[in-house]
Amino acid sequence: MVKISELSDRSGLTIQTIKFYIREGLLPKGAATGATRAEYDERHLDRLRLVRALREVGDLPVAAIRRIVAAVDDDDVGMHRLFGITQYAIGPHVDPPDQDPGAPEDLAAQWRTARQDVDALICELGWRVTARAPARDLLAQTFVALRRLGFPVTLADLLPYTRAAAAVAEHEIGMVAADAPRTRAVHAMLVSTVLYEQVLTALHRLAQEDLSARRFGADDPGETN
Amino acid sequence: MVKISELSDRSGLTIQTIKFYIREGLLPKGAATGATRAEYDERHLDRLRLVRALREVGDLPVAAIRRIVAAVDDDDVGMHRLFGITQYAIGPHVDPPDQDPGAPEDLAAQWRTARQDVDALICELGWRVTARAPARDLLAQTFVALRRLGFPVTLADLLPYTRAAAAVAEHEIGMVAADAPRTRAVHAMLVSTVLYEQVLTALHRLAQEDLSARRFGADDPGETN
Repeated sequence: MVKISELSDRSGLTIQTIKFYIREGLLPKGAATGATRAEYDERHLDRLRLVRALREVGDLPVAAIRRIVAAVDDDDVGMHRLFGITQYAIGPHVDPPDQDPGAPEDLAAQWRTARQDVDALICELGWRVTARAPARDLLAQTFVALRRLGFPVTLADLLPYTRAAAAVAEHEIGMVAADAPRTRAVHAMLVSTVLYEQVLTALHRLAQEDLSARRFGADDPGETN
Repeated sequence: MVKISELSDRSGLTIQTIKFYIREGLLPKGAATGATRAEYDERHLDRLRLVRALREVGDLPVAAIRRIVAAVDDDDVGMHRLFGITQYAIGPHVDPPDQDPGAPEDLAAQWRTARQDVDALICELGWRVTARAPARDLLAQTFVALRRLGFPVTLADLLPYTRAAAAVAEHEIGMVAADAPRTRAVHAMLVSTVLYEQVLTALHRLAQEDLSARRFGADDPGETN
């Protein structure tokens, strides 16, 4: 059991921020040890680290964080649903133009086609994903952009990407210990969604450069630049 | 050979925008057919599509686009270097805090360690990537963020991601026909760097949901939500 000042030191958050989180219902109160004093334990520290990560890495508003921590605390919410609540709260979120009455008709039509293609792809893959998963619209958005630039998108084009995504996700879900505390499991899920996505992006660019060097580099006087 | 009005129709860009691109040196002048008239061919259309994609998808400033199209037009610039010029121009770009005298010392030190780890990783993988590739800093940034949240990053943690990135990049480089026109090859490179990166992100989230459903869904009353 530690005082709020030590909780502040160990979490890297100011006492003001910790008190704000308690007022907002993001962190449970400590055990009262006097009229104005309370003590905190490891679970408070874990929770603070999760809240901090949701704020700083997930860039989530307080209301979204409150929903997530309420789900963490509710043992009736299973792990899969907990992951869904977390992932669906994380941006970027896309507003489909087919639901915007001011959008041009051709864009709305392209969007509807793209979204149908996404739904057909997920069905074809046999992936268990809810109809309201925000990543469906995220994917539909890229289909629209690719087609507007003259790149058709077919299932065959996507195969290397679906394989890579599935391999990485399999690794990530496998890393969640069956008996992991719920706070830590959600934390790991957030980190793999946001930060390992960036890892994958950076590695993708590095791999492109490597493979371009192998394929085209021999002819290229600028290769060693 | 077509007039500027048809070039506008086919590229989806206004005549004003096309004239602006010509003034800025992003598009070659048409063949003069009179004092104030000129005609354009398929190469102009291809170039316009590339410039539009660099602006809209790559979000690049005019000066960066000018460098890229100058490299496209210079046959002394090999394909590998052309890809490098394009990829290095595309953001996000990271400003390493170890080069910022105002950055806190501990952050600068964490950054230096992360960047050394990135360099060691690339060396270990045997990837041919220049020391100034911006994706090195992009990756270092995520290492710093992960470690600040208490997630150590080791080579073993990264293996599934490096494999996935290499598989996808191999597919992408393989899609570039050996005899593809340079304009189209750069266009394809841009699209795979920016838009297929988003495809991969969206598929990653969908795959996470699927694998979470398979692993945890059976226990979960909320699964079908």
